[in-house]
Amino acid sequence: MRIGVLGGGQLGRMLALAGYQLGLEFVFYDRNPEACVAGLGTLVIGEFDDKTRLAAFAQQVDVVTIEFESIPLVAMEYVAQFAPVYPGPLAVSAAQDRLDEKQLFKSLGIPTPEFYAADDAESLADIAKHHNDTMVVKSRRFGYDGKGQLLLESSDDVAKVWAALGGVPLIVEQRMQFSREVSIIAVRNSSGETGFYPLTKNLHKQGILRRSQVSLHDPLQSKAEEYARCVMKKLNYIGVLGFEFFDCDGRLVANEIAPRVHNSGHWTIEGAVTSQFENHLRAILDWPLGDTSVRASCVMHNIIGEQPDIKMLLQVPDSHVHYYGKAPLPGRKLGHITLWGSTVQNAMAVEDILNGHLESELLTTVVQRRRSAI
Amino acid sequence: MRIGVLGGGQLGRMLALAGYQLGLEFVFYDRNPEACVAGLGTLVIGEFDDKTRLAAFAQQVDVVTIEFESIPLVAMEYVAQFAPVYPGPLAVSAAQDRLDEKQLFKSLGIPTPEFYAADDAESLADIAKHHNDTMVVKSRRFGYDGKGQLLLESSDDVAKVWAALGGVPLIVEQRMQFSREVSIIAVRNSSGETGFYPLTKNLHKQGILRRSQVSLHDPLQSKAEEYARCVMKKLNYIGVLGFEFFDCDGRLVANEIAPRVHNSGHWTIEGAVTSQFENHLRAILDWPLGDTSVRASCVMHNIIGEQPDIKMLLQVPDSHVHYYGKAPLPGRKLGHITLWGSTVQNAMAVEDILNGHLESELLTTVVQRRRSAI
Repeated sequence: MRIGVLGGGQLGRMLALAGYQLGLEFVFYDRNPEACVAGLGTLVIGEFDDKTRLAAFAQQVDVVTIEFESIPLVAMEYVAQFAPVYPGPLAVSAAQDRLDEKQLFKSLGIPTPEFYAADDAESLADIAKHHNDTMVVKSRRFGYDGKGQLLLESSDDVAKVWAALGGVPLIVEQRMQFSREVSIIAVRNSSGETGFYPLTKNLHKQGILRRSQVSLHDPLQSKAEEYARCVMKKLNYIGVLGFEFFDCDGRLVANEIAPRVHNSGHWTIEGAVTSQFENHLRAILDWPLGDTSVRASCVMHNIIGEQPDIKMLLQVPDSHVHYYGKAPLPGRKLGHITLWGSTVQNAMAVEDILNGHLESELLTTVVQRRRSAI
Repeated sequence: MRIGVLGGGQLGRMLALAGYQLGLEFVFYDRNPEACVAGLGTLVIGEFDDKTRLAAFAQQVDVVTIEFESIPLVAMEYVAQFAPVYPGPLAVSAAQDRLDEKQLFKSLGIPTPEFYAADDAESLADIAKHHNDTMVVKSRRFGYDGKGQLLLESSDDVAKVWAALGGVPLIVEQRMQFSREVSIIAVRNSSGETGFYPLTKNLHKQGILRRSQVSLHDPLQSKAEEYARCVMKKLNYIGVLGFEFFDCDGRLVANEIAPRVHNSGHWTIEGAVTSQFENHLRAILDWPLGDTSVRASCVMHNIIGEQPDIKMLLQVPDSHVHYYGKAPLPGRKLGHITLWGSTVQNAMAVEDILNGHLESELLTTVVQRRRSAI
């Protein structure tokens, strides 16, 4: 079986690594010949409006999936003429527009922050006038990793915010006071079978996910599963779905969905019986889903902007290092490291390495402990 | 870093899957354009005596390793002019000739079956005359999976056995009465750091490995480590080494070494903190070795000759399916399945699937149990 993947980033790379193990083959479609999946299958280079290239891609695969959600819908719809596309274009489109997404949640009775559409500077000003609190202003489309969003502190800032976000249609949201950010990774195949991983607790800095920690037996687990199941059913969703929430005093408030494998689920490669990547492939092939049970509580740290010396990371006990083969660039996700069943000491050693504190006493202790253990 | 691999079979494939995760890239060298690593890196096609192709391969990599041991030494030595080769040609040559190998064990005080060289039919007849027991006759070179070996029951069979093995130099070995076949996977890097996985108990049929089972806290563990350490030190060995023994009433008798990752270590992908594949790469890059501790007791079943429906295998709880992307052929290793921390019931369900008993009551029970668990 040949899997076609629209997009050639690290999520496609990890899908392929899971899929080759199952005897699958991969064809990727990306604009960039240097995409980090290069070497891991056939890479078709093309723009997302190039029908000739898209057809050449789709004609050589059995099923198509995506690894980033901002793919133009027309491209997905065009490709669907040649091979089934999962998740389907309609399901993906629901996640491409932050206003549609919030309206979907609302229609399903899933709590969200208060939100308003602002299609021009005037309506943005009007919303600001009626709210004294700081609001979060986001472009409706193409936002990720904190890009395309700003805080609106007062009415005085309306013109500046409008201009800074590029004069595009916006959604204005109530800024939530939350105790935690959590997410659930859910999966559904075309037979309607579903699976859910345990909640993870996520730490963002400057809008970018830095760390995810499995939260076993979380009191909000069943509520998160209920919301995810509800969205997947509504969208007739097939594949893995990431769903992010704010935990506001024990109440889940929906932030956003991602119609793909999700950064907060990378720990499942080592930490769950079946990884999110394998389960996504099983789902789009309508194979039986794999067990989502946890082997051990894990912490995942993203490697962002700079790549530390791999020898340092490999010395931390129970560490599993994943490098994506991408050139360093500020704010770019270059890899991640998962600590399996990990101690606070190991997790802090990794933080020290990622922060460049290579001489820390803690790190020396951890590494020495490891050396004597071998 | 780019790793060059001489050979393009499933061992190369699993090395690559482990290596991409660490951000490494792969170039393979194989005679067969359909080699099962195709798609997982650059594949250079050539014979092992084609210096132009070998140079083209070696000039684009940082380090070279092997994934099958019958590679002509001259090819390894030629490639070594362009990039370091680990394990080194001399270490590999020790494993390429069954007589040299047994003499190495003997020189190190490692018990072996009694053995004799037979370079012609006359010397074979002479050995047979002096032994009433059945002997095992093997070609000195190019044997694997039971190929190139026959039993010699009596002097009357000498001419037949000599002819059947192709009239090549032979080693004649005492046939051991053993209670178990066991193996140890060992690893050593160029700093001399070593690591050892727990013994596995192996079941062969018709000379081909069928099943490997981890044997935790085996009473022969320390003896096996001692022998493996001794061999690796003598050969200045770098990389993963597989070492097979007979357990003869609690005494280890050396059978053979394989200078590469080993089929009986495939369970380490899921079952150990660090897989044999990752540790081989760490060793040849002189990176710190990874922890060889066991996460859970595992059973690995080889998939041989025919590929069962993957949906059946995926329904067995705690199963991890690995398909190598190879065309079915009698006796060919097409994949393996590892059961993690597994129950007898699951292991028997896999046996039933591999034996084509898909209607077994046991299997139905296991699958039903799984369905209700999700």
